[in-house]
Amino acid sequence: MDRLNNNVETLSIRVRYSHCDRMGVVYHVNYLEYFEWARSDWIRNFWKSYDEVEKEGYYFIVIESHLRFHAPAHYEELLNVQVNPVDWGRSKVEIEYRIVRENDEKLICSGKTIHCFTDRNGKPVAIPIELRNLLTSNH
Amino acid sequence: MDRLNNNVETLSIRVRYSHCDRMGVVYHVNYLEYFEWARSDWIRNFWKSYDEVEKEGYYFIVIESHLRFHAPAHYEELLNVQVNPVDWGRSKVEIEYRIVRENDEKLICSGKTIHCFTDRNGKPVAIPIELRNLLTSNH
Amino acid sequence: MDRLNNNVETLSIRVRYSHCDRMGVVYHVNYLEYFEWARSDWIRNFWKSYDEVEKEGYYFIVIESHLRFHAPAHYEELLNVQVNPVDWGRSKVEIEYRIVRENDEKLICSGKTIHCFTDRNGKPVAIPIELRNLLTSNH
Amino acid sequence: MDRLNNNVETLSIRVRYSHCDRMGVVYHVNYLEYFEWARSDWIRNFWKSYDEVEKEGYYFIVIESHLRFHAPAHYEELLNVQVNPVDWGRSKVEIEYRIVRENDEKLICSGKTIHCFTDRNGKPVAIPIELRNLLTSNH
Repeated sequence: MDRLNNNVETLSIRVRYSHCDRMGVVYHVNYLEYFEWARSDWIRNFWKSYDEVEKEGYYFIVIESHLRFHAPAHYEELLNVQVNPVDWGRSKVEIEYRIVRENDEKLICSGKTIHCFTDRNGKPVAIPIELRNLLTSNH
Repeated sequence: MDRLNNNVETLSIRVRYSHCDRMGVVYHVNYLEYFEWARSDWIRNFWKSYDEVEKEGYYFIVIESHLRFHAPAHYEELLNVQVNPVDWGRSKVEIEYRIVRENDEKLICSGKTIHCFTDRNGKPVAIPIELRNLLTSNH
Repeated sequence: MDRLNNNVETLSIRVRYSHCDRMGVVYHVNYLEYFEWARSDWIRNFWKSYDEVEKEGYYFIVIESHLRFHAPAHYEELLNVQVNPVDWGRSKVEIEYRIVRENDEKLICSGKTIHCFTDRNGKPVAIPIELRNLLTSNH
Repeated sequence: MDRLNNNVETLSIRVRYSHCDRMGVVYHVNYLEYFEWARSDWIRNFWKSYDEVEKEGYYFIVIESHLRFHAPAHYEELLNVQVNPVDWGRSKVEIEYRIVRENDEKLICSGKTIHCFTDRNGKPVAIPIELRNLLTSNH
């Protein structure tokens, strides 16, 4: 990963027993949680911990999520979750994801989430200037 | 609900402490799980338990999900999840959802899931005729 | 249930697809979550919503949990979770649970949790007098 | 970790947003799930993947779990989960856990789980000889 040239971040996740349903595959809802885990790692590495972001009074709420489930993943497999912020406006950021199985590079799940920066009361605010500059300069 | 005239089913869900995040609102991923709970109740009431469906060798896998998060819901609130199958083809069924808070009828989350009937090996098969007839006659 | 004569409260839970693991049975961790759901209903019916309790500055934190898994439960089954506060001291409350399957009254899981009332800073405080009186008078 | 001289295995877990409740701390139920994740890593490193164990017809079911919650953990913190099989009989294995925060070595949660090896039908069977030998030789 070359963070100087692009925004893509990858998180490796081990599929846990608790993530699998009685078909023996990852229960589909967990992929949306995997997106969040990877987004959290992306924002920490790219800018700063989302924990600090919230402490400064910014909230990066989810307003939309879209997922496509391409193939099943199984217990113990390693999945790589790629996070890529693809577009942003005044308050909104659109992030794309691809979850790929490590051993055969098979695409398991893809999707995107749309976020809005808000203050503590849920009112939309501009993307913090530090993050905006990082997004622009790494595009 | 009048199941004779339409396909809409409603499940009432109490927001649990375990469903809320540190913003004090329902963690967004849980809404996709609520969709599944309501879909499970819908299919049981409309046709038969999904448990039996799987035992007969049919799998109703999720291939897409789309969610919009309109307003936050909180611990202890009662949410009504409406399930409405809106379209179907040979193998696929598209289902829409609206999650509305009981006390003020505020729209909390809306979305849809697209499903495909498959056999045990993941090969798409036609929608079971019983379900197809129910969908058609109640449309 | 006769809430005037005893403290036992029962919550009926439908086993969800999302709660089952690849053995096709309820993933054991979910029983501890079921305990919380039932405890939340107990405290609301017995005293007041735990939401209000926290707003008044009391926290009812979990300090121990003990579970025995007696028999597997399956997707779609109805489980009755019985909650019974069995002992209390100055700050602590001990609550017992029995999860019984509705259709055959089989004991699925039993256990207990030990709780401590604290203030916002995690310092133990006396059980609120209202709750103490209810516990004592219904014993 | 020196796997040649003892059985202790440690898994490092990043606390996720999805794991925290509205008090801003790890929701207590998740610790029991963390135990499972660490046990899964322990068995893979110590013997073989639990996935293979199940495919060979052995099930390592949980029959008891006991947890003590010592201090709260927070979003983004790194937790080390230590797994230590402390006792075993013909069919049963008792495993202890300690969850320690990485940055200050504070004990967050401790506990144990008791397991039983069974066949596909839930009938207790002897601990597989390979695992028994490993447990004995590393004690």
